[in-house]
Amino acid sequence: MPRYKLTVAYDGTNFHGWQKQHPPGSEPLRTVQGVLEEAVIEAVREKVNVLGASRTDAGVHAMGQVAAFNSTFEIEPAQLVEAVTSRLPADVQVHEASIVPIDFDPIQDCLSKGYRYRLASARRRSSTRPLFDRHYTAWSPWELDVEAMNRAAQHLVGEHDFASLTRLNHGRETTIRTIHECKVRAEGDQRLCIDVSGNGFLYNMVRIIAGTLVEVGRGRLRDDVIPDLLESRDRGRTGRTMPPEGLCLMWIDYGG
Amino acid sequence: MPRYKLTVAYDGTNFHGWQKQHPPGSEPLRTVQGVLEEAVIEAVREKVNVLGASRTDAGVHAMGQVAAFNSTFEIEPAQLVEAVTSRLPADVQVHEASIVPIDFDPIQDCLSKGYRYRLASARRRSSTRPLFDRHYTAWSPWELDVEAMNRAAQHLVGEHDFASLTRLNHGRETTIRTIHECKVRAEGDQRLCIDVSGNGFLYNMVRIIAGTLVEVGRGRLRDDVIPDLLESRDRGRTGRTMPPEGLCLMWIDYGG
Repeated sequence: MPRYKLTVAYDGTNFHGWQKQHPPGSEPLRTVQGVLEEAVIEAVREKVNVLGASRTDAGVHAMGQVAAFNSTFEIEPAQLVEAVTSRLPADVQVHEASIVPIDFDPIQDCLSKGYRYRLASARRRSSTRPLFDRHYTAWSPWELDVEAMNRAAQHLVGEHDFASLTRLNHGRETTIRTIHECKVRAEGDQRLCIDVSGNGFLYNMVRIIAGTLVEVGRGRLRDDVIPDLLESRDRGRTGRTMPPEGLCLMWIDYGG
Repeated sequence: MPRYKLTVAYDGTNFHGWQKQHPPGSEPLRTVQGVLEEAVIEAVREKVNVLGASRTDAGVHAMGQVAAFNSTFEIEPAQLVEAVTSRLPADVQVHEASIVPIDFDPIQDCLSKGYRYRLASARRRSSTRPLFDRHYTAWSPWELDVEAMNRAAQHLVGEHDFASLTRLNHGRETTIRTIHECKVRAEGDQRLCIDVSGNGFLYNMVRIIAGTLVEVGRGRLRDDVIPDLLESRDRGRTGRTMPPEGLCLMWIDYGG
């Protein structure tokens, strides 16, 4: 029985996140996993379970989410892309498909992931809130020092205990993760991008990293304070959890 | 009594167009004029009528719509921008305000207007429909010859009878207009922009120009056919009315 791997892009605005949710006594919520699974079931004409690599939250977007499922239905990957995408609503797309070993596990086999956090900031007096990209860009009403944010970001790179940069009830055994790269750069006059990649991320970790770097950009935290914040393991000392709309899961690397 | 001029930007996706509409026996529809007028009334604390320069259709966007109103309330333009914008929903923004002569007429005094039509095309085999910009970009499933489209567009420039490029029931006395500029260019691999400006536009004119240029781009019309199409005054010979989401009213020029 073939196992298929899909690369999926979605606009998270109108989804209750990735994971299927069926609150007792009401209709199932609209989730990416639910919508995708329905389209796959129609395409392969049998019940399947679609497992995703990353449980993105409500409002979070993806360019390169990865999902996998088994099916007795044999189809060329390029045809599968077409067959599934044509059954999906306008806010989800399958960009690639491949046949993978039957033991491929999108969660456990992941070597690294990359996220982008997009932010519009009042860097000039005339700047206004995002309008046409407001569902994909968070807003910061302060003037931000991009260079200071980027200097601070370099202290996140490496293996660290990220307890101070995750939600208090993160539900994970260990809060040690490795960040491979974290770069902050200006994009035009009024937009910033924070690109971060690593071997794994804790709950809300990228959004709290973004919020902490915003504190540095505003001048409320020094750019060399990150080692202390990591050392403290104190969520109370880091920045706020930035809103979901700025976050996009860009890619997941499985090597090979 | 001061007369105020506002420059207004909006995402038309969730509006029934610019103009106020109140169908008998039901709630008023959500329109930009309606929403803006409410915000202005709250800001100046008296009943006003906000008149717009251009009645954009449902789904059409604006970066530089112009509106005007009279009010006995005296307020600095910069404060008016702030006062109105803070009362507007996230999909409308006031970008500028000024005090204008009491006889300023946003419709009659307009010297020229500029529109942009955005299009994603399957110029490469790998291209997919727009996802994150799908509300601001129309989709053409064909490979398009941008250079041919731009050559054709040059035949639209000048004073012509545009009867073949407007809706049959356009409701205007004359269909003669002057196009100042019409340029088609590629933006990256899979996006096209059609920029058109002129002294006035007939109903659906830009969307039909876009549809006609798409026919040229696909090779179904020759790039030198435009003079014949204009001459014929026959709506049956021009392209389809492209969908509203690709269209954006960019600016309106009043001289001075």
